[in-house]
Amino acid sequence: FFSRGLQTVTLIPGDGIGPEISSAVMQIFDAAKAPIRWEERNVTAIKGPGGRWMIPPDAKESMDRSKIGLKGPLKTPIAAGHPSMNLLLRKTFDLYANVRPCVSIEGYKTPYTDVDLVTIRENTEGEYSGIEHVIVDGVVQSIKLITENASRRIAEYAFEYARNNQRSSVTAVHKANIMRMSDGLFLRKCREVAENYKDIKFTEMYLDTVCLNMVQDPTQFDILVMPNLYGDILSDLCAGLIGGLGVTPSGNIGANGVAIFESVHGTAPDIAGMDLANPTALLLSAVMMLRHMGLHDHGNKIQTACFDTIRDKKVLTKDLGGNSKCSEFTADICRRIQDLD
Amino acid sequence: FFSRGLQTVTLIPGDGIGPEISSAVMQIFDAAKAPIRWEERNVTAIKGPGGRWMIPPDAKESMDRSKIGLKGPLKTPIAAGHPSMNLLLRKTFDLYANVRPCVSIEGYKTPYTDVDLVTIRENTEGEYSGIEHVIVDGVVQSIKLITENASRRIAEYAFEYARNNQRSSVTAVHKANIMRMSDGLFLRKCREVAENYKDIKFTEMYLDTVCLNMVQDPTQFDILVMPNLYGDILSDLCAGLIGGLGVTPSGNIGANGVAIFESVHGTAPDIAGMDLANPTALLLSAVMMLRHMGLHDHGNKIQTACFDTIRDKKVLTKDLGGNSKCSEFTADICRRIQDLD
Ligand SMILES: CC(C)[C@H](C(=O)O)[C@@H](O)C(=O)O
Ligand SMILES: CC(C)[C@H](C(=O)O)[C@@H](O)C(=O)O
Repeated sequence: FFSRGLQTVTLIPGDGIGPEISSAVMQIFDAAKAPIRWEERNVTAIKGPGGRWMIPPDAKESMDRSKIGLKGPLKTPIAAGHPSMNLLLRKTFDLYANVRPCVSIEGYKTPYTDVDLVTIRENTEGEYSGIEHVIVDGVVQSIKLITENASRRIAEYAFEYARNNQRSSVTAVHKANIMRMSDGLFLRKCREVAENYKDIKFTEMYLDTVCLNMVQDPTQFDILVMPNLYGDILSDLCAGLIGGLGVTPSGNIGANGVAIFESVHGTAPDIAGMDLANPTALLLSAVMMLRHMGLHDHGNKIQTACFDTIRDKKVLTKDLGGNSKCSEFTADICRRIQDLD
Repeated sequence: FFSRGLQTVTLIPGDGIGPEISSAVMQIFDAAKAPIRWEERNVTAIKGPGGRWMIPPDAKESMDRSKIGLKGPLKTPIAAGHPSMNLLLRKTFDLYANVRPCVSIEGYKTPYTDVDLVTIRENTEGEYSGIEHVIVDGVVQSIKLITENASRRIAEYAFEYARNNQRSSVTAVHKANIMRMSDGLFLRKCREVAENYKDIKFTEMYLDTVCLNMVQDPTQFDILVMPNLYGDILSDLCAGLIGGLGVTPSGNIGANGVAIFESVHGTAPDIAGMDLANPTALLLSAVMMLRHMGLHDHGNKIQTACFDTIRDKKVLTKDLGGNSKCSEFTADICRRIQDLD
């Protein structure tokens, strides 16, 4: 961190439009002279010893070394028992915090303006435990697992994030009125951690109330922290407020600086290879990555150029309301970066 | 049903603003000559034999006889171990379907227009099973219970509702990519039931995708059916799209015609007794009730008058953007009903 040499990043271009938008990001990083060396890896799941699904050893090895990944969309395999690659990556590297800043983009009209919030999702347990049973024929149970350690860890992450990003409040999102013990434990840990961050305002709110208030006035929210499933829901809802997954960045953070940043949209096979894809979500995820690596100046420059291109409305991809190609949109951002110098 | 005599309805006015808005509804029903006899009952929870919380016998007895209830907001008791009255009522009368029509109200501006959808929530199991355990210190599990019977029952309710209300599609909302067995069972039952309703289009969608699409374009949805917690979340989100809980009706439907209709907003203790409350949510719930009882003409008349008053903007309560009293708003609706005759 903060070194002047090149830092290695494991690049997982992904499937469908993944390679195109990854190459757009690489071009823009070149234009911004970001001190990054890309190490490209493919991550189709393979069957390891004992029949367990795992990511290919060379990808794992690269990530273990670089600690930082940037990842395009991965197609969901259809083979029976095949795990979601996204879940497998989160698990393999214990990426316990999923962070999604949702900020209104000037010039890209949605029903909302001035959204500026961050969802922080516990990424390892809860409803995603994967433990399910048939009790008797026709009766199934799924187990939601909440632990003290994971709850404390994500609460601490949220408050640290708030402090490091000059944010003023953290809201814990829960249903402890219904799941008194599990969400109760999560909430208790948030309250305890809040005690150590007197500079950050702490509030608690039921998930249903958050959803209702969110669509009425999202500007009332700042940082939201919550268990896994609630985060899955709220992060997508909030992405919708600012224009969808095509413009929303995402980061998965683990311990000791390990992190994978990713666009969370699909692989868009219908337009793959046609130079029509919008690289914004992956680019903004890469900007989050630069900040995570301490490269704030490079991150800011790229973000400014990207938002300028969108605000300007002259060179936009189709999904953004224009009719430019991915390469033209990319070139416009590169040009602006050079102009900024 | 369809009888020309008076039908009895158990009225649970509730707490806070409950009595005021209930009396508003009764006045409006009088003006519309709705053939209803109200039987007022109080439902503070009491401790029954063996220490189990239950609703008072006279309220239970009235509901058992009338089969139909109308209910204002109930305050959440703070005594330890005291159950939510709403949950207790759902349980006592096995009200397995929570139905919330969300329709944009002309003249009441929100970021959305032309919303016209219905959320149908399984109301008896899922994440609301109440089964939780501490596994070891710091590790808690909550059990989500999905049964074949309850899933089939709610799916059948949704498709019947669609057919009886000239709706064209039903979307099952799930996370069967994560909770493969439990949500998988729910989804399978929906698919099976859909086979018997070839006139209704059936689709399936992940909950996170629904939330994202919902805030981008709610007009794409028609009827949505889902497990308990997802319904809790989505019904509140959708209420937010059309103006909040103050204007959103709700019905809880059980077997054999038993049903309780209710406003789902709070008791608003700060304005209770001040003639400032907005009776719209309870009134529209009462309109749902009339339709459930086969009294469509009375229901339509009241709904038209209520929407006319709101569209007209001259006599509105504070939360609707005006400065009229509850009694003035009520009188305006009554006057319009008389004019309609
Ligand atoms: C792909 C899927 C397993 C995933 C999830 O449910 O977590 C996705 O919705 C997400 O938010 O990353
Ligand atoms: C009051 C509470 C128990 C309830 C719930 O969570 O179901 C409420 O949010 C609702 O939607 O009726």
